[in-house]
Amino acid sequence: MKVHVDLCLIPMGGDVSVSAEVAACQQIFQRAGLSHQLHAFGTNIEGEWDEVMAAVKACHTEVHQLGRVRVSSTMKIGTRTDREQSLDEKIESVISKI
Amino acid sequence: MKVHVDLCLIPMGGDVSVSAEVAACQQIFQRAGLSHQLHAFGTNIEGEWDEVMAAVKACHTEVHQLGRVRVSSTMKIGTRTDREQSLDEKIESVISKI
Amino acid sequence: MKVHVDLCLIPMGGDVSVSAEVAACQQIFQRAGLSHQLHAFGTNIEGEWDEVMAAVKACHTEVHQLGRVRVSSTMKIGTRTDREQSLDEKIESVISKI
Amino acid sequence: MKVHVDLCLIPMGGDVSVSAEVAACQQIFQRAGLSHQLHAFGTNIEGEWDEVMAAVKACHTEVHQLGRVRVSSTMKIGTRTDREQSLDEKIESVISKI
Repeated sequence: MKVHVDLCLIPMGGDVSVSAEVAACQQIFQRAGLSHQLHAFGTNIEGEWDEVMAAVKACHTEVHQLGRVRVSSTMKIGTRTDREQSLDEKIESVISKI
Repeated sequence: MKVHVDLCLIPMGGDVSVSAEVAACQQIFQRAGLSHQLHAFGTNIEGEWDEVMAAVKACHTEVHQLGRVRVSSTMKIGTRTDREQSLDEKIESVISKI
Repeated sequence: MKVHVDLCLIPMGGDVSVSAEVAACQQIFQRAGLSHQLHAFGTNIEGEWDEVMAAVKACHTEVHQLGRVRVSSTMKIGTRTDREQSLDEKIESVISKI
Repeated sequence: MKVHVDLCLIPMGGDVSVSAEVAACQQIFQRAGLSHQLHAFGTNIEGEWDEVMAAVKACHTEVHQLGRVRVSSTMKIGTRTDREQSLDEKIESVISKI
């Protein structure tokens, strides 16, 4: 099952800045070979369900290892069985109608 | 790794009512033996990461099998390494301070 | 326009515990006379759009005044024009189908 | 109060495709003169709290007028009092650390 995910991971407590932790997650997606796109409130990722979810788990584990004791993520998950559609095609479909 | 999840699953397209699909997901959590609590905008679930995420995947698969071709979920994910805290304890901690 | 909202407010940085800030938000909903229900990952609120959104703004302002310099909320917003449905009726509709 | 918002609006029921409705919302942000950036799971918007929230309300109203009787949005809301930071600066801060 293919999945589209939008992950916004927030380390709670400690430093107000979270960009180091978000950067560490980007590297996890890169090493996993997952197509991903950073935006100002999260990262969109596409791939096989199990691979994407393994990367999300790796993000939580990594951010804990960086010293953050509490992590709260918000994730959107999209699956469809009628057709395949890439993240880029979702954006193009909207832009074509503006 | 223990996890707290808040899952709000939305079948897109077709019938405006989604309660049948949400009910089917409740049964998935029950069969999985996962502690869970339905609220008006989702279901809170607690358990081991892999077991909870397997149940979330089963929800998407089940809702597709019920005939919904597109499913969009919003999920909150909480992990912490400083201490264990149940879903009930989170609520009690707030109520004690009101 | 009536609205259903699920608000999960997270103060970023500083203390790992956020229950004091969540409790302060509960009091804002109470003083505003808004029907609301705390759960383990947020608070469900129902009412007129402008009143509910004014309360959400008051929550951000209050949490900043409590000394938190950065606040990140996740909010679900539901509106419908086909019929009125309370938060309790949403839950009952699911339970009747389990 | 300045605010950063990530809005993902989902019309429920009816057509599986939602790109027409998302396109209509883009036009609302443009007409309101709000800085905004479409991504594959939503739109990031920055501006004054009241102006941004008025645009979000206009999106719900517009999508109902387009014939969708039920609308469910997920919105992330960020405010901070320590410093101003644009949406672009948030992204650059992460990229500089990868």
